[in-house]
Amino acid sequence: MATKKNQHIYFFGNGKAQGNAKMKTLLGGKGANLAEMTSIKIPVPPGFTITTNTCAEYYELGKKLPKTLLKEIDANITKLEKSFGKKFGDKSDPLLVSIRSGAAASMPGMMDTVLNLGLTDASVEAFAKKTGNAKFAYDSYRRFIQMFGDVVMDVPHSEFEKALRDAKKKAKAVSDMDLSSKQLSDLIKTYKAIYKKHTKKNFPNDPKEQLLSSIKAVFSSWDNERANLYKRMNDLRGLNGTAVNVQAMVFGNMGETSGTGVCFTRNPSNGENKFYGEYLMNAQGEDVVAGIRTPNPISSLAKKDKKSYNELTAIRTKLEKHYKDMQDIEFTIQEGKLYILQTRNGKRTTQAAVKIAVDKVKEKLITEKQAVLEIDPNSLDQLLHPTFDPASEKAATILLKGLPASPGAASGRIAFTNAQAAKYKDGGDQVILVRNETSPEDLAGMDASRGILTAMGGMTSHAAVVARGMGKCCVCGASTGTDLRIDEKAGKLSVTANNGKKYTFKTGDYISLSVGKEGVVLDGKLKTQDPELKGSFNELMKMADKFRKMKVRTNADTPKDTKIAIKFGAEGIGLCRTEHMFFEGDRIIAVREMILAADEKGRRKALKKLLPIQRKDFYEMYLALNGMPCTIRLIDPPLHEFLPHDAKGQAVMAKAMKKKPSEIKELVDDLHESNPMLGHRGCRLAITYPEILEMQVRAIIEAAVDAKKKKKVKVLPEIMIPLVGHVKEFTILKAIALKTIGEVLKEKKVAKNYIDYKIGTMIEVPRAAITADEIAKEAEFFSFGTNDLTQMGCGFSRDDAGKFLTEYTNAGIYEYDPFQVIDEAGVGELVKIAVQKGRKVRKNIKLGICGEHGGEPKSVNFCHKVGLDYVSCSPFRVPIAKLAAAQASIR
Amino acid sequence: MATKKNQHIYFFGNGKAQGNAKMKTLLGGKGANLAEMTSIKIPVPPGFTITTNTCAEYYELGKKLPKTLLKEIDANITKLEKSFGKKFGDKSDPLLVSIRSGAAASMPGMMDTVLNLGLTDASVEAFAKKTGNAKFAYDSYRRFIQMFGDVVMDVPHSEFEKALRDAKKKAKAVSDMDLSSKQLSDLIKTYKAIYKKHTKKNFPNDPKEQLLSSIKAVFSSWDNERANLYKRMNDLRGLNGTAVNVQAMVFGNMGETSGTGVCFTRNPSNGENKFYGEYLMNAQGEDVVAGIRTPNPISSLAKKDKKSYNELTAIRTKLEKHYKDMQDIEFTIQEGKLYILQTRNGKRTTQAAVKIAVDKVKEKLITEKQAVLEIDPNSLDQLLHPTFDPASEKAATILLKGLPASPGAASGRIAFTNAQAAKYKDGGDQVILVRNETSPEDLAGMDASRGILTAMGGMTSHAAVVARGMGKCCVCGASTGTDLRIDEKAGKLSVTANNGKKYTFKTGDYISLSVGKEGVVLDGKLKTQDPELKGSFNELMKMADKFRKMKVRTNADTPKDTKIAIKFGAEGIGLCRTEHMFFEGDRIIAVREMILAADEKGRRKALKKLLPIQRKDFYEMYLALNGMPCTIRLIDPPLHEFLPHDAKGQAVMAKAMKKKPSEIKELVDDLHESNPMLGHRGCRLAITYPEILEMQVRAIIEAAVDAKKKKKVKVLPEIMIPLVGHVKEFTILKAIALKTIGEVLKEKKVAKNYIDYKIGTMIEVPRAAITADEIAKEAEFFSFGTNDLTQMGCGFSRDDAGKFLTEYTNAGIYEYDPFQVIDEAGVGELVKIAVQKGRKVRKNIKLGICGEHGGEPKSVNFCHKVGLDYVSCSPFRVPIAKLAAAQASIR
Repeated sequence: MATKKNQHIYFFGNGKAQGNAKMKTLLGGKGANLAEMTSIKIPVPPGFTITTNTCAEYYELGKKLPKTLLKEIDANITKLEKSFGKKFGDKSDPLLVSIRSGAAASMPGMMDTVLNLGLTDASVEAFAKKTGNAKFAYDSYRRFIQMFGDVVMDVPHSEFEKALRDAKKKAKAVSDMDLSSKQLSDLIKTYKAIYKKHTKKNFPNDPKEQLLSSIKAVFSSWDNERANLYKRMNDLRGLNGTAVNVQAMVFGNMGETSGTGVCFTRNPSNGENKFYGEYLMNAQGEDVVAGIRTPNPISSLAKKDKKSYNELTAIRTKLEKHYKDMQDIEFTIQEGKLYILQTRNGKRTTQAAVKIAVDKVKEKLITEKQAVLEIDPNSLDQLLHPTFDPASEKAATILLKGLPASPGAASGRIAFTNAQAAKYKDGGDQVILVRNETSPEDLAGMDASRGILTAMGGMTSHAAVVARGMGKCCVCGASTGTDLRIDEKAGKLSVTANNGKKYTFKTGDYISLSVGKEGVVLDGKLKTQDPELKGSFNELMKMADKFRKMKVRTNADTPKDTKIAIKFGAEGIGLCRTEHMFFEGDRIIAVREMILAADEKGRRKALKKLLPIQRKDFYEMYLALNGMPCTIRLIDPPLHEFLPHDAKGQAVMAKAMKKKPSEIKELVDDLHESNPMLGHRGCRLAITYPEILEMQVRAIIEAAVDAKKKKKVKVLPEIMIPLVGHVKEFTILKAIALKTIGEVLKEKKVAKNYIDYKIGTMIEVPRAAITADEIAKEAEFFSFGTNDLTQMGCGFSRDDAGKFLTEYTNAGIYEYDPFQVIDEAGVGELVKIAVQKGRKVRKNIKLGICGEHGGEPKSVNFCHKVGLDYVSCSPFRVPIAKLAAAQASIR
Repeated sequence: MATKKNQHIYFFGNGKAQGNAKMKTLLGGKGANLAEMTSIKIPVPPGFTITTNTCAEYYELGKKLPKTLLKEIDANITKLEKSFGKKFGDKSDPLLVSIRSGAAASMPGMMDTVLNLGLTDASVEAFAKKTGNAKFAYDSYRRFIQMFGDVVMDVPHSEFEKALRDAKKKAKAVSDMDLSSKQLSDLIKTYKAIYKKHTKKNFPNDPKEQLLSSIKAVFSSWDNERANLYKRMNDLRGLNGTAVNVQAMVFGNMGETSGTGVCFTRNPSNGENKFYGEYLMNAQGEDVVAGIRTPNPISSLAKKDKKSYNELTAIRTKLEKHYKDMQDIEFTIQEGKLYILQTRNGKRTTQAAVKIAVDKVKEKLITEKQAVLEIDPNSLDQLLHPTFDPASEKAATILLKGLPASPGAASGRIAFTNAQAAKYKDGGDQVILVRNETSPEDLAGMDASRGILTAMGGMTSHAAVVARGMGKCCVCGASTGTDLRIDEKAGKLSVTANNGKKYTFKTGDYISLSVGKEGVVLDGKLKTQDPELKGSFNELMKMADKFRKMKVRTNADTPKDTKIAIKFGAEGIGLCRTEHMFFEGDRIIAVREMILAADEKGRRKALKKLLPIQRKDFYEMYLALNGMPCTIRLIDPPLHEFLPHDAKGQAVMAKAMKKKPSEIKELVDDLHESNPMLGHRGCRLAITYPEILEMQVRAIIEAAVDAKKKKKVKVLPEIMIPLVGHVKEFTILKAIALKTIGEVLKEKKVAKNYIDYKIGTMIEVPRAAITADEIAKEAEFFSFGTNDLTQMGCGFSRDDAGKFLTEYTNAGIYEYDPFQVIDEAGVGELVKIAVQKGRKVRKNIKLGICGEHGGEPKSVNFCHKVGLDYVSCSPFRVPIAKLAAAQASIR
């Protein structure tokens, strides 16, 4: 089919389409795929797509439809009527259409939908006659009025619901289906009265008027609060707007030979290559998705309607081959005839995504490179989080089992409302959101929670889909087969547990969710354990390693963390914050004695107590690293941070140091700084108190010699001097370090080159970046401390910027929070300058990054571009960084 | 005379010298000038200079003299003996020498001197015989033993003094001169015993041994505490060491035809071209300088010894023409024969320096360029400080008049010791140091004081010379002709005032010094007034203006400051800190209401009260500026700084806002930040509260329109948005500013181009410097806020860095405190980057600096080099900046 310039509408139907799958930006995901499916002869009801550009135009015109659009709509309605063989507003066989939104990125349930459009007082009669089912026709009309009123005209939903309840009560009907044609006809009158009361207008009897209003409503929904929250949460940027899909209606609720369903070409929860989905006979699509009725597994359709089932499985294969990815398919069977209403790349858990990507390589659907690029590195986070300790889980009372909607494990306090969830989260508690069902209004509450439990809804319900996207653990449909009762208003949950006892929980009580193959709900708070990584995950990481150029190290401060990180694949330590070692156990007393000492003699006395402790830690870390490099940062924070600020802590120190508490308080107060981030810290401490540096260097080298001598392991200590701003700071401290090293090696009676050590610095002060050439003359490595570099480079205190940084990212001043994603144009430029200046002077200088950015994929990509040798991040983010590094390298 | 490579010693004598005046680095100032004077036939006693390199070698060898030096000493002693016709250690006519230090820069009194060297038990007899004055000979020997013991061997000075006192007591002698030869001879024995007690050695009877020990002592004194303090205080860096001058002794104390004096070729206090100086007959040079006896004015020498006086005035003319600068000359007359012992460029007050420079141009001794370069811009500070208000001064009781040793005016609390002076200064009080006389030990106390008063000593006494150098006001010799008594131990000063009444002051009481042509000491604390600049000063500034390329603006926040700055020659306002206007009078209440308001409405209400106040200030500043540009910075500091932190202030606000004090306290606490320097401030405030910016821009433009309309003055407001880090901050705020400006111009019914305004930004966040090209697309000017740029660029909090920055400059990490002198390699590099990037995008972008550095000469020089259009500094520093800018331009 031909297309024109400035064309607002793209038609699809009868095996031909103006659009195709590549036109997602213009037609939205749904529209592009409807066109594509039409072209490859998938049975799709005909229709047309109004472009996303039209949505942008609509906003530019101040929320008005462009004039030329109206003519195009007329032309396409005519085409549609011809294609589907029905006429809009026809009094014998009226064309009914659905109006659905569809942006370039999938935003399930976020924008508005109108069904059954085209029904009017006149056409409903024809529709009743044609379908031979008056009740169905009136019910459809009733639903349309309600939906149109609610979605398009903002008539309160609750008033329609109340009228429906009253009608059922009057008719003593249990379900909607029990209402007679007459009763439905009366209800329609009541609905129209409600409509008129609120809109001051009659319900429109012109399908064209219905259509135009609905299109506007969909365009407007692009900018509603829900949609905007979703866009922010999912980092969707630069989209034009939503497309509008107008498509001939087909009905899954025309009796027992009709039905509707949602299916995935593979298991979206664990990735298994097995057809997966749910359907309901005699239902509309919304019934499955909304989770009001619990649907049947797709496999059982083979018995109910073998022809449709076979056709569906053939389509499953065809679509997967065509799209080379797992598809999420919506279908409707109208009186035995199968229609596909939508296909899209299916959302999946990370576990599934990894397995599917690896499987597709094996099935030769995609290459290894494509598989590596297919996984969002951030999503791996889900796989890397702890599960419950099996012993505690075994010991806990199982309250019930529901659907394993999103995998993981979470303990937390019960919240029944978004507000409660947010409140607990802000108080530092973990939260489990408990609801009968969730809707897009619940996004904020889900975001605040660690896990979600719902009574209603299936594996494709709102709660399930969203939780998987968020990487949160979720159990759905938990009331099926149990006596679970959730009273959201009263703040109560009750259930008879597997052990036969009745349990009641109220707001704030602890429960736990454990979701693997089953969705288990447990009583109380449980201990967690670290995840094990195997199977597809390891295969993916091996593929990534083939392409990766940067090394990935970890930030670890203890022998324990070191071991975890190595399990996750860390290739050394990029940042060991020695002061973190100071907080364990009683060590802090000696640290405080050192800080509060009156003179160098007193400090040296306290440092003597710390030496064996630090040496032991380093020794164990070297053993764990077994030959991998270990960058050790000398003491960095302002001394004030180590001191007790409460009377109790000060009393303890007074006793330990045989001083008055008031004296301790005075010493503590003396060390207070107005801007500690820019104060007496980092290498400035060592300039003032070289004895601290001497102790730390001594511990590093003594441990290195011991490890090499006793355990024959290779040790590669890299001594890192923090917060250097001027090369002279570095040269002074390097000289002291070298002197100490010389002394230790002499004492230990080993050769001068016995230990292969390096001395380098962090680049975290802007001045250091600017004068990196001077510093590189002296330093053997640079590690970019991008946290501080961001603080000083942008002038944002991490502790205070929260107050305005959200405002800044919302206003688009910074695209991302610069503490989360490196600010390439500013802080990144400083890094670039330092890299160039550093390499110019010392060609083989080792360059890495050890700020939080080292585990953030966009920043890792930047590090690759700028030519760093390695990134370093927290143990749990090592695989993420590895994957991101591989992707950067492929790109 | 020929010189050799690696030569340690340079000889001068009999009209020939190996060195010359250009060799100051090698020979020190004194040595180079002795050589030069010898060459131009000035009567200089012969001698030789051991080079400063030898001093460096001495330290490199671990405080040992180089071996080859010893041979050179022998050779030069032989030469000297020949030249002067006396022999070292000779038993009939022994050669005596003086040993004096002399570095490349003048450091008066800082290092050690030994006189009369060569006297031994044997030679003293010969000396007595030869001079025919046994008393004189023994007294010389006594003095030599004392000086050698004290300076070379560290024998306590006090023990010799005690022995002398005891001897006088025993002999019932009033002065040293009253002791007989026998008594002196006995005293010599006692001195030798003291010497032996402390050194465990006999006093050396070998002149060679005396010489070598003395040379070592002079070299060692280069590194003593006094000398190091002087070097730091006078910013003397990169010196090799001191030279040692060994010179044949001549004696001013050989009776009434002998004498000694110090003179200046012009008046060092006011610059008048009149011979100036003091002398004492029958005295050694140290007697004049130390201020023990009050000397006679040089003019009276014409009567005492006309021949020497005429010879001296001829030498005065010769030396000035030769050196093209005012000379400070030391001379000795030995039995009617005049010798010149030293000449150097004379220290002078700034007032004198300016007059001398301008006069020398008139006398065609130097060019205008040379005159401009001759004045240290920092020294102008002295001329720019307030004097006493004449009415108050007239009303005050004159306690006494002394010598006008260093001009200026100062009130302060009396301190008799260094410790007291430091204590008052640290407490925020101004101090007058009151002493009988000062010595190099008193440097710290003088540094802490605003003025110095001494009972003893003349215009060339230690107190006078040092005070002039420091630019402090000083009255000397105040006991001459008065009954002034200073009891330093008891902390008391008493004097009968001009009114005949007796006054007594104790530590902490207030006195005032007013030094112009007279040195007046007044009772109590006096009001000051701004200095008036005229005469030579104006002539010098005019010369400077001929060469200067950069404009000099001022930092002024009030109409009053603006007027002062214009009087000092400011060419516009470079920084008006609008928030400073907020603290005056009751305004702060409205400011606090604005900050504490619950919402935008409340803020707007409070802002309405501030609008007319700000408008009025701007209006008056525009009038004062009369067409010169005015850069106005929008609100900058964290809001917390405006709030009351005490219960009383909070109670006031509670009443004003009809809230509970506890509520106010909570609001205040909420605004607290961990690192306010990196917090919610600068343009970040305007992003959050655009209504503040709107009010300020409105005030700026309304005042501009009013001033232009009503007073027909040209107005050039430059609206400056502070703390921009990202161009988007700027564009957002610029848009709001433009909208407000548009509204104001419309309301005022004037054309859109009625006011010639600019909108620009400060470059003070490192990120802004790095992305200056982006920002320059939008900003019409940059003003470098180098205070903040230093804070963030170097990572130094101004409020906290005091704790370690002194240590940093002492250790030479930063050459200067980077908050005082711009750190060229780091912060300066950021400025350079921003200048280049800014000009690349906007060729005619206006570039200036408004940090404290704008008034500091080294930094002004940097600003010139980097190509800024103007600097801006505090009103009192405008002339300094102008002179510095001219010098930069000439260089």
